[in-house]
Amino acid sequence: MYPRSLDCLIESFKSLPGIGSKTAERLAFALLDLDNEQIKVFSESMLEAKEKIHRCKKCNMMTDEELCFVCSDDSRKDSKVLCVVEDPKNVFLFEKLDMFHGKYHVLDGLISPLDGINPEDIGLDKLLDRIKEDNLEEIIFAFKPSIEGETTSLYIKKILEGLNIKITKLASGVPIGADMEYVDSLTLERALNDRKTIE
Amino acid sequence: MYPRSLDCLIESFKSLPGIGSKTAERLAFALLDLDNEQIKVFSESMLEAKEKIHRCKKCNMMTDEELCFVCSDDSRKDSKVLCVVEDPKNVFLFEKLDMFHGKYHVLDGLISPLDGINPEDIGLDKLLDRIKEDNLEEIIFAFKPSIEGETTSLYIKKILEGLNIKITKLASGVPIGADMEYVDSLTLERALNDRKTIE
Repeated sequence: MYPRSLDCLIESFKSLPGIGSKTAERLAFALLDLDNEQIKVFSESMLEAKEKIHRCKKCNMMTDEELCFVCSDDSRKDSKVLCVVEDPKNVFLFEKLDMFHGKYHVLDGLISPLDGINPEDIGLDKLLDRIKEDNLEEIIFAFKPSIEGETTSLYIKKILEGLNIKITKLASGVPIGADMEYVDSLTLERALNDRKTIE
Repeated sequence: MYPRSLDCLIESFKSLPGIGSKTAERLAFALLDLDNEQIKVFSESMLEAKEKIHRCKKCNMMTDEELCFVCSDDSRKDSKVLCVVEDPKNVFLFEKLDMFHGKYHVLDGLISPLDGINPEDIGLDKLLDRIKEDNLEEIIFAFKPSIEGETTSLYIKKILEGLNIKITKLASGVPIGADMEYVDSLTLERALNDRKTIE
């Protein structure tokens, strides 16, 4: 029913996760309403982003330079704190908060034997080399609270045994603003176990 | 913070209506996860769709041929019923339902003096020429129920006065499955006025 070229465009939108048929159609029609110049820019920006963006050779973060914006930031050069994340997106997330001013290292995901992702698949070598080179005082694991996150934290902690580095992870507990009745029992149990003294 | 080429891509996604910053970021990251070939196809399909899709010279519908799929459908050639819509998308919508097998004519929107859209701006000439040529028995206005829809219907009806053509519009009333308490008063009033005898 749709003109062939429109069909192709809709199919392309559908290849993005979370975009179903209806949304793909809506976006394709909306795209056709843009002017020629805008579409040309859009089309080129896709190719350019895919071509230029690669990983930072130091921290494995997304970048289109040799070093990412954090690794090339001189003010962080002497930081002794390294935050390890599972995905480049999380670095952007932390940076938007503007609350952490140390260094980052991005893994290629988390260890998940059930999904066939083993320790050698997530780029640990690069992390370990870096830990040896940089003179760190603390490593923060900022993984999502999950079996995979725990496994990966414990695995790396074991490798680092004997080094004089403090190893921490993000606190987990009841999220600010949550209604207590909607908090799942695992989170509540964790929050209870990790309770803090009010000083 | 984002690499420049990623920023451009996010901006492009944001130029689509209904796509805010968060969604644009999510889509841009998802796009980068596609492989090179998929992105090439996506990028080309945008350019191709914009370049090839134009309006059907007969009914003003979207098409990449000279005539759209309805106008080139021989089985409809002798239909005496013309459905007039305000947007090409509505033809796809009707065709998906597979309940109307007549012809269509697509206007370039509805008359809306407040928005500066006057009768001469919505392609009425083409419609009137066509009505004169085709030997029609009925014209259905399938506009959205709104001031603009009513205005456009009445305006065209007035022009066609004296021609022996039945002029109809879509019924409006309570949508099937709606909870009565959530139906707005204007719709309810219309439904009451247009009440049907149960036979």
